[in-house]
Amino acid sequence: MLSVLSFLRRRRHHCYQLRLLHDRQSSTAASTLRTPLSHPTYFVWSPNTSLGKTLVSTGLAFSSLIGRSAPSKFVYLKPVQTGFPSDSDSLYLFNKLSSLSLLHKPHSPLLSSHQILQSSFPAANSLSSSLIRRSPDVSAPSGHPNSASGMVDLSFYKENRVLGDESEGNFVSELVSRTIFAYEEAVSPHLAAKRESAAVQDSVVVEMVERCLRAGLEGESEDREVLCLVETAGGVASPGPSGSLQCDLYRPLRLPAILVGDGRLGGISATISAYESLKLRGYDVAAVVFEDRGLVNEVPIMCYLRNRVPVLVLPQIPQDPADDLMQWFDDSRSVFNSLRDIMQSAYAERMHALLHMPKKAKEKFWWPFTQHGLVPEEGVTLIDSRCGENFSVFKGANDKSMTQLFDACASWWTQGPDATLQAELARDMGYAAARFGHVMFPENVYEPALACAELLLDGVGKGWASRVYFSDNGSTAIEIALKMAFRKFSVDHGNLSDILSNIEDDKKAELMVLALQGSYHGDTLGAMEAQSPSAYTSFLQQPWYTGRGLFLDPPTVFLSNSIWNLAVPEVLHSKVVEHRTTFRLREEIFCKSRDNSELAGLYASYISQHLSGAGGHKCIGALIIEPVVQGAGGMHMVDPLFHRVLVNECRSRRIPVIFDEVFTGFWRLGAESAADLLGVQPDIACYAKLMTGGIIPLAATLASGEIFDAFMGDSKLDALLHGHSYSAHAMGCTAAAKAIKWLKDPETNLNFSSEGKLLKELWDITLVNRISDHPAVHRVIALGTLFAMELRVEGNNAGYGSLYSRRLIRMLRDDGIYVRPLGNVIYFMCGPCTSPEICSQLLTKLYRNLEEFHRLRSKDEFMDVVVEK
Amino acid sequence: MLSVLSFLRRRRHHCYQLRLLHDRQSSTAASTLRTPLSHPTYFVWSPNTSLGKTLVSTGLAFSSLIGRSAPSKFVYLKPVQTGFPSDSDSLYLFNKLSSLSLLHKPHSPLLSSHQILQSSFPAANSLSSSLIRRSPDVSAPSGHPNSASGMVDLSFYKENRVLGDESEGNFVSELVSRTIFAYEEAVSPHLAAKRESAAVQDSVVVEMVERCLRAGLEGESEDREVLCLVETAGGVASPGPSGSLQCDLYRPLRLPAILVGDGRLGGISATISAYESLKLRGYDVAAVVFEDRGLVNEVPIMCYLRNRVPVLVLPQIPQDPADDLMQWFDDSRSVFNSLRDIMQSAYAERMHALLHMPKKAKEKFWWPFTQHGLVPEEGVTLIDSRCGENFSVFKGANDKSMTQLFDACASWWTQGPDATLQAELARDMGYAAARFGHVMFPENVYEPALACAELLLDGVGKGWASRVYFSDNGSTAIEIALKMAFRKFSVDHGNLSDILSNIEDDKKAELMVLALQGSYHGDTLGAMEAQSPSAYTSFLQQPWYTGRGLFLDPPTVFLSNSIWNLAVPEVLHSKVVEHRTTFRLREEIFCKSRDNSELAGLYASYISQHLSGAGGHKCIGALIIEPVVQGAGGMHMVDPLFHRVLVNECRSRRIPVIFDEVFTGFWRLGAESAADLLGVQPDIACYAKLMTGGIIPLAATLASGEIFDAFMGDSKLDALLHGHSYSAHAMGCTAAAKAIKWLKDPETNLNFSSEGKLLKELWDITLVNRISDHPAVHRVIALGTLFAMELRVEGNNAGYGSLYSRRLIRMLRDDGIYVRPLGNVIYFMCGPCTSPEICSQLLTKLYRNLEEFHRLRSKDEFMDVVVEK
Repeated sequence: MLSVLSFLRRRRHHCYQLRLLHDRQSSTAASTLRTPLSHPTYFVWSPNTSLGKTLVSTGLAFSSLIGRSAPSKFVYLKPVQTGFPSDSDSLYLFNKLSSLSLLHKPHSPLLSSHQILQSSFPAANSLSSSLIRRSPDVSAPSGHPNSASGMVDLSFYKENRVLGDESEGNFVSELVSRTIFAYEEAVSPHLAAKRESAAVQDSVVVEMVERCLRAGLEGESEDREVLCLVETAGGVASPGPSGSLQCDLYRPLRLPAILVGDGRLGGISATISAYESLKLRGYDVAAVVFEDRGLVNEVPIMCYLRNRVPVLVLPQIPQDPADDLMQWFDDSRSVFNSLRDIMQSAYAERMHALLHMPKKAKEKFWWPFTQHGLVPEEGVTLIDSRCGENFSVFKGANDKSMTQLFDACASWWTQGPDATLQAELARDMGYAAARFGHVMFPENVYEPALACAELLLDGVGKGWASRVYFSDNGSTAIEIALKMAFRKFSVDHGNLSDILSNIEDDKKAELMVLALQGSYHGDTLGAMEAQSPSAYTSFLQQPWYTGRGLFLDPPTVFLSNSIWNLAVPEVLHSKVVEHRTTFRLREEIFCKSRDNSELAGLYASYISQHLSGAGGHKCIGALIIEPVVQGAGGMHMVDPLFHRVLVNECRSRRIPVIFDEVFTGFWRLGAESAADLLGVQPDIACYAKLMTGGIIPLAATLASGEIFDAFMGDSKLDALLHGHSYSAHAMGCTAAAKAIKWLKDPETNLNFSSEGKLLKELWDITLVNRISDHPAVHRVIALGTLFAMELRVEGNNAGYGSLYSRRLIRMLRDDGIYVRPLGNVIYFMCGPCTSPEICSQLLTKLYRNLEEFHRLRSKDEFMDVVVEK
Repeated sequence: MLSVLSFLRRRRHHCYQLRLLHDRQSSTAASTLRTPLSHPTYFVWSPNTSLGKTLVSTGLAFSSLIGRSAPSKFVYLKPVQTGFPSDSDSLYLFNKLSSLSLLHKPHSPLLSSHQILQSSFPAANSLSSSLIRRSPDVSAPSGHPNSASGMVDLSFYKENRVLGDESEGNFVSELVSRTIFAYEEAVSPHLAAKRESAAVQDSVVVEMVERCLRAGLEGESEDREVLCLVETAGGVASPGPSGSLQCDLYRPLRLPAILVGDGRLGGISATISAYESLKLRGYDVAAVVFEDRGLVNEVPIMCYLRNRVPVLVLPQIPQDPADDLMQWFDDSRSVFNSLRDIMQSAYAERMHALLHMPKKAKEKFWWPFTQHGLVPEEGVTLIDSRCGENFSVFKGANDKSMTQLFDACASWWTQGPDATLQAELARDMGYAAARFGHVMFPENVYEPALACAELLLDGVGKGWASRVYFSDNGSTAIEIALKMAFRKFSVDHGNLSDILSNIEDDKKAELMVLALQGSYHGDTLGAMEAQSPSAYTSFLQQPWYTGRGLFLDPPTVFLSNSIWNLAVPEVLHSKVVEHRTTFRLREEIFCKSRDNSELAGLYASYISQHLSGAGGHKCIGALIIEPVVQGAGGMHMVDPLFHRVLVNECRSRRIPVIFDEVFTGFWRLGAESAADLLGVQPDIACYAKLMTGGIIPLAATLASGEIFDAFMGDSKLDALLHGHSYSAHAMGCTAAAKAIKWLKDPETNLNFSSEGKLLKELWDITLVNRISDHPAVHRVIALGTLFAMELRVEGNNAGYGSLYSRRLIRMLRDDGIYVRPLGNVIYFMCGPCTSPEICSQLLTKLYRNLEEFHRLRSKDEFMDVVVEK
């Protein structure tokens, strides 16, 4: 019997390479689109070809431009046309409007223009050269020469002016009808592009649409009613020129949609499925409209839509090909008027909502880590959507547009997906919710939970972990880890209760963790107790916090003036001075040969001293560290040698070792887990954030078999009695299973060399060094997806409360990068799939802004007095 | 301008009532389907009509039955046929197979049967009565008389035996081809059903399919290769007879799917959209197959599927209607063989996975609250999917079938949706993931977070709350609430640090909460500290727990022998005896007039005494309670009068009041919040669990403006420095916004009377009383979606560790109800939309099993020694 897998293998050569998918999609990632929102602008979609998209567009133009009592403008774009020149939807609309306007006197003057920007060579050859004129206002985006894509800069242009009646007053209405890319063959654009050797990258299509929209809307006052349509080709999921599905291709623009449905037998299903494909890509559908074919398809469709989306029905279209449809357009006028009203209203409602959201947010939200008194309304960022690494942000009343910002804080370090993975995750989320919603976990099994557990044990837990304990976030994962560690300690060292009582002077000993200064493990009390005192743990924040840890000051490493430096705690200063304290390459710092250095011995005795100095009143029940980099504490890279020695010292004392990999896990630092970088393994480790690809909360505490065994017994009371309602929820596990596989698969993550052990270097070393040389910069870290930079400050401008970076943050946000500082530490965090090119763009922008910031600073041109996180 | 809303209102009358939707869908909810999995069984779907579903079915029958070297069986079901009798897919397949088998000698004998079970009157009239014979083995499900549905019990039956060659050995292959419901008009089933007055409920269609599958597979050994197909009508989202979309209608069966795609122009989009509609309902698609139309549609489809699903291409179908397709079937044989292989392999892989999942789960999971030593492999429940309130559970190697179990523990009290809401949520999850994934929250705003906050403030927070603080689960919401309360207390009473130091004997006072015995607020340390000592908080579980509360013993109420009783703490026994301690109706307990009773005074002095008795070393900084019902503590209903008095006493002392509504919120107890039942409002309240409709984790801590103001200031360090990575994640907020609206809307939740203030009574009072009269029952509570019952036990069989109920739990699970006890307390929890009929079925089953349990108990026929949660 043929297995499914072998069948798939056999057929694999038939398929596009996924790398191709990346090539055609990823280049939009760092672009900064600015999509105008000054007037209603819609996509026109359809489940299939030949359902009347162009008739609907034409009808809307008719309704907008003819017989109106005020001036109006209609902009029609056909980004991709096949079957050209015999088929041209923009020409059809242009011609039809002329005919309609001549038939519908009295009317105001109508100025129409028709334009075809680019076509393939075969399509161009089919056009008489006499027809070709220069385009007046739109050219191809720079950096994408047409010669490379095989496209001809056609710029076919035609104008038409229909004079109006004197009685109608003096206003002029305007029609702009444009085709952007035209192909000759009447097939799907991806086939036409291939056969006519005229491929166009997705990013170029999107940029051209955006450019044409801006050209069509620029300078328009709000007095003249304007309606813009972008009509897609074929069905919603028909491939565009690059092969990307159109619904994916146009996603960065996320214009609201008009769906031209199907009134025929089978059309209910086709319309609903197309609607679902649009929603599954995050589009909003403003209305569904289709031709009546006598089957009352609108009833089940409206029922499906629960009356939330208007459904309009057009009169049946005459079958006779000789019919010029003039009568049909007249008969349909009221439907088109309704549709136009709906589109105008939906636009007005959206704008109203967008304009009022920041104020409402300020009134109703209680943001975490935010002093509300310090956030002005105009300081609220309105995020309309995310597409891969980019936010789409509404810029407010003055600049009615959507701008793309690179999410360089990775939304609190959770984000990993590019646009392709996000789309995959969206489909998986729909599937998991439909199949499982959430189901009970204890004593049960279901596919996604098992798949996720297996991937964790075979990935970050490989070689040491044998069990997965699911919870909801990093903080709960830590609380669970602590409970595990204390039990194991108790089993190993005898009854813990006895140990704590059994000291000389009758005072009960305190059970504590060994941890590092500058650590952060979460905000629930148990997690707080395990971290060193900080702003987060102050008496003001949680009076119950006591800090149940012995907190060591760790040696750190950082890049400065293109050299990696070692900074050791004060007590070691005198001793370390003889040892090597700088490194030329980051790799040297991680080198295992350092284990035999004298420094390793120094570290060991430093740790031993503290452990024995802790005295009888302190009982160290667990070690807990963030391996390699301490995140919230300020992006400090601890000397990996120190971490390694620390783990070994604890292990020799049978103190269970917990790695908090909530931040560092899943390629954040370039390896699947930071433990891989250290080369030592924990007994317990916590994962969250990026684990689900950053889509929904899920956490896992992994444990070795020995830890698990400490809870085995005859009684339920011996079991670990900790749990959260949504333990191992199906959606989180589904997302995690997809993301974990995706990020480590060289077919889907191009940042892997063939080996797949480490991400390729994402941050250009020359740029990184250059920044580390800058006088405004105190130190730099670049590792995996993380680039961090501490600004050089004086006095009390350092630390969490610092306001020093505020201006630079604002400059970067204005330059398309959404950053959020940790006091005077500014970091960029990309996804494990983000291309090094994008990272270089980010660093280049940073350097440019840093220069300006430094220039202004040195002139003392600003002084902010506000604190941020 | 016409607003979108007014347009929608105008058109509303066009639409089916949503109530109809409920009627046609909900009746499957409590049924106990048993879908056989003994042999591969598939749905055949298509994006549209006329794409060759029946040709694919026929080709698979051909490949399965003819020219094989071993006996085989092919079962074909067409649940709904329109255009009958001129169109009959089952007859086509039956006839075609006869022709094909005659042409393909040598072969083994083939026994074929064709059957049509029911049809509308018009369809029946069109059939010659001479053709009608009795059905041999399948009849309509009981309880659904055909007369009611307007269906005729047609039972058209035909047999055909093709003799084989002697040389082929002795085996006989078999074809079963059946139509279940036939309509005359060649339109969508919902239209035909309406026009022919022959509606069929969804549950009846599903049960008939299941019954036919069982009839077709019963008694089949695993030696004979069997393949079953269920061919749908029209497109994936074409309506069935009731008007439900077929992809929704058949969802309880969730058979794997074969998608017959579209090879024409536009077919890529149609195929992908149909595929997405199937996935968006939780179906697995095993293969895509379509007719070659020369457009290489398989390439982009395979690319889209990332080679994870096989795509097969059939030779073009001859256009000539006179062609009998014999040659085409021959030419297509290899493709059908591959498809059949793929279906067999996918089935084998699925079975292998299902059979091994429990073992793997035992090896890799660390379940919460579970003593792993006590869970045998056969005790692991394999949940294959959820559909509304029901699990679909795989019963293991002996009984290869999927059985439905009512999720009566509401998966740790998270669940609310019925099948319709689950499907809506699934679409919303896909949309939210595609539009947002997750985006950064602090200082930002995005639509779902704002929508969710507004709904919370206008719902559970109405009248008191002005701010929403989002987190991940109940436990984190409590930790946040405590931080809020302590700060407010500090602001109101002067610097907290000073207060705690400023006592006589130099000992620092302890900051504590006022809470109740039997309380539970979560498993992170902060939440644990606020609850009274229990098994969850023991030293063994978390050595850091100290119990920082003054824990009062509360008076409780419960139903016993059809009477509501009041049980007061021991210290009040002597005083309360004079007061009324029983109630005939539950409403009397909630009656506000009790505020003026002497009992209210007694409660007040009891509380005052404890508060002043706490002494100077205890500083009470907050009150925290689970209003009305204490959940995890054993489903105890606290006297609402006591809760009210308690709140008032604290308020008069300016102690902030926290309601933990994690369990009680969102209609769990019949009102949107339990605070509504009490008639007093908190300063801070925590919500989670059911808030998202039970689909993903999200929590909210609501606070009054006064609480919020306690954190305002000039410094960020005054802000509440607590947060989780996924704060206000878009998917959770989207789910919550949908669920909150859905559950309180009388159009979508039929459990509302016109008022909409309280759910209608879900638990039949007669049945509830009857159970409370039972000698095996100690006490009962029925309120909102909760029915709880404490078994009468002796000695140490009570409490969390009790094993007394184990046998009853097993009996209920075998009877289709998934329960999970709290020691000797057994509870049923339905959703706010669950119909009272289903609740009555549950109670009836409970009573029956209780009788049996009691009978066995009294005979001492079993004695279990295992502890459960």
